[in-house]
Amino acid sequence: MAGISPAEQAAMARARELALRGPRGVNPQVGAVLLAPDGAVLAEGWHRGAGTPHAEVDALSRVSPAQARGTTAVVTLEPCNHTGRTGPCAEALVAAGVARVVHASADPGDASSGGAERLRAAGVDVARADEAEGDALIADWLFVQRTGRPRVTVKWAQSLDGRAAAADGTSRWITGPEARAHVHRERAAHDAIAVGTGTVLADDPQLTARIDGEDAPQPLPVVFGDRPVPEAAALRRHPRGLRIATRDLERELFALAADGIQALYVEGGPTLASAFLRAGLADRLTVYLAPTLLGGPRTALDDIGVGTIDEQRRLTVSRLEQLGRDLLVEATTEKER
Amino acid sequence: MAGISPAEQAAMARARELALRGPRGVNPQVGAVLLAPDGAVLAEGWHRGAGTPHAEVDALSRVSPAQARGTTAVVTLEPCNHTGRTGPCAEALVAAGVARVVHASADPGDASSGGAERLRAAGVDVARADEAEGDALIADWLFVQRTGRPRVTVKWAQSLDGRAAAADGTSRWITGPEARAHVHRERAAHDAIAVGTGTVLADDPQLTARIDGEDAPQPLPVVFGDRPVPEAAALRRHPRGLRIATRDLERELFALAADGIQALYVEGGPTLASAFLRAGLADRLTVYLAPTLLGGPRTALDDIGVGTIDEQRRLTVSRLEQLGRDLLVEATTEKER
Ligand SMILES: NC(=O)c1ccc[n+]([C@@H]2O[C@H](COP(=O)([O-])OP(=O)(O)OC[C@H]3O[C@@H](n4cnc5c(N)ncnc54)[C@H](OP(=O)(O)O)[C@@H]3O)[C@@H](O)[C@H]2O)c1
Ligand SMILES: NC(=O)c1ccc[n+]([C@@H]2O[C@H](COP(=O)([O-])OP(=O)(O)OC[C@H]3O[C@@H](n4cnc5c(N)ncnc54)[C@H](OP(=O)(O)O)[C@@H]3O)[C@@H](O)[C@H]2O)c1
Repeated sequence: MAGISPAEQAAMARARELALRGPRGVNPQVGAVLLAPDGAVLAEGWHRGAGTPHAEVDALSRVSPAQARGTTAVVTLEPCNHTGRTGPCAEALVAAGVARVVHASADPGDASSGGAERLRAAGVDVARADEAEGDALIADWLFVQRTGRPRVTVKWAQSLDGRAAAADGTSRWITGPEARAHVHRERAAHDAIAVGTGTVLADDPQLTARIDGEDAPQPLPVVFGDRPVPEAAALRRHPRGLRIATRDLERELFALAADGIQALYVEGGPTLASAFLRAGLADRLTVYLAPTLLGGPRTALDDIGVGTIDEQRRLTVSRLEQLGRDLLVEATTEKER
Repeated sequence: MAGISPAEQAAMARARELALRGPRGVNPQVGAVLLAPDGAVLAEGWHRGAGTPHAEVDALSRVSPAQARGTTAVVTLEPCNHTGRTGPCAEALVAAGVARVVHASADPGDASSGGAERLRAAGVDVARADEAEGDALIADWLFVQRTGRPRVTVKWAQSLDGRAAAADGTSRWITGPEARAHVHRERAAHDAIAVGTGTVLADDPQLTARIDGEDAPQPLPVVFGDRPVPEAAALRRHPRGLRIATRDLERELFALAADGIQALYVEGGPTLASAFLRAGLADRLTVYLAPTLLGGPRTALDDIGVGTIDEQRRLTVSRLEQLGRDLLVEATTEKER
């Protein structure tokens, strides 16, 4: 297996950029660049979503059959080996006479993996490059492939002593403008935002991502709970529409993943956040800690299923960041087992 | 007023070291160095506690009357101007024929201040140096002079979500060994440690300062509350003895200050910590935040008198420090007004 040439390295970086032009959904974002034997870029391609050609086939479609022969395909994900709504990419590359394939991530699918082997069996030279970057590009999609559900971030804001509101329920504002702006960027980085019916009925939130001077992507709002969302609720006018979910968190997560939600942002309130933690369905936490004390009954979490100290839910802090006067604690939950 | 000479600068630094040889108590720690006109050190002195000579008089007592004439007295605190159990130092310096006095802190006392003026009126040259360092040396004593009570630090350990224990009351261990070692150093840096009867009855703590390889100073243990401390309690065998205090926090603080307690370390539990906060008697907070979640009813604080968000107790964070896996948040409470 030959080393990776500078032209291939550059093509891989470009392929990652191209990947991001495609949508997030049930399929991964994939980009591809077709290189002539001398390293010149012949074509670019990316995947535009379920049912459309895969990235490498998209790139191949932009050159003539004669041009395709003897080329190198640089692609962020291992070419697939199965016939879904599109034919297997490995076969398409072989048929086109591609001489070499450089890919980043391995295809984790039971049905779709094996593309590299099939290419090699057909005499195509196969090499890997930038695996870590490729995996990072599609981290949420890989998570869905592994678990069957979206990656869940549970977010809350609290006083230093763990309260979400004062005794009378008032909470505007515990955190400052920098922390609140950060929340909007986090919203925009997820595919869906979840709240419980309690928050909808108490706060009538809009749940839109509002970022100064930017046309932010709008995640899908999801309301968990049995009580109906009022006809007059602001959420009913959300640009993405509104999804209603039951209290069966695990089942709803599987359904969300099936509909292309790779990353879910749970914004509360305390009851829903605690339910996610209790069920072991919170993968990442973002806690905005305000330098203030409230005391009283309005805790940011309630029962999370810890009866005794040995059952405490240890966290691994991945980031501590000062946001204005507030502190952002980003952590992952340590899985038992 | 002449500038400060290098010999005087060095003498002031030395005087601060000498001051620390004296005890903390109702009187401030003060050190003094007597310099010959050529800058040579003639004598050192420090205050050994109430009823004993003040530092400058202690230094003067170590030289002959002839030697004392024309010297410079370098002292960390303005010489006093009142007759207490000892005569006024200003007068003693004048009588000894001291030519110049360099002092750091000003004497804040109503009765004792005015020493510098009195010296000047008698023709002694008076200069000030290292005021900030001098004030830092006796910060707690200055606090007592201003408020009539000890400076109060309220400490607690909590999970990220503000719990002091799991639902069943177990809490060993929420924080790690580094945080617990830090608590022992904090204990040694205070004059007294307070807990409520609840903690005594639940935990039977020793409340000694235990620092590896050091002979740590032992603060006085104080138990607040009406229930009796059992005869068998570990606290009854504390090397400093045991002080019992009522629920009247403000009154007890005044009494502690009168007995020479300049800095009090309130170690909980939740009820006592909340009572100090509710009464506005917590000057400094040290919160050990463990990267873990507990949920449930055992909050580290209960009602601190905040009914609505406008009454929140804003904090000024003075230090954020990682202690092993835990985070120490050191803060002062912002006083209303
Ligand atoms: N500090 C923060 O970061 C933050 C964030 C958001 C909200 N809040 C505040 O939180 C308050 C609302 O609190 P909340 O706890 O009532 O709101 P919530 O968590 O949004 O809603 C709770 C409701 O969600 C439903 N639900 C859905 N799935 C559930 C499950 N698996 N287990 C249990 N319940 C489930 C239940 O209602 P059904 O009976 O309808 O099923 C439950 O009563 C508001 O005052 C809001 O301002 C604070
Ligand atoms: N996480 C931590 O940092 C930490 C630290 C210490 C203790 N703890 C835990 O806290 C638990 C004990 O909690 P707790 O809250 O009962 O203990 P506590 O605060 O030590 O004691 C509470 C008792 O103090 C007395 N008290 C004295 N002055 C008071 C005042 N001004 N206002 C109200 N009460 C006053 C009252 O008892 P009387 O009826 O006798 O007057 C009250 O019931 C234990 O399980 C212990 O392990 C945790």
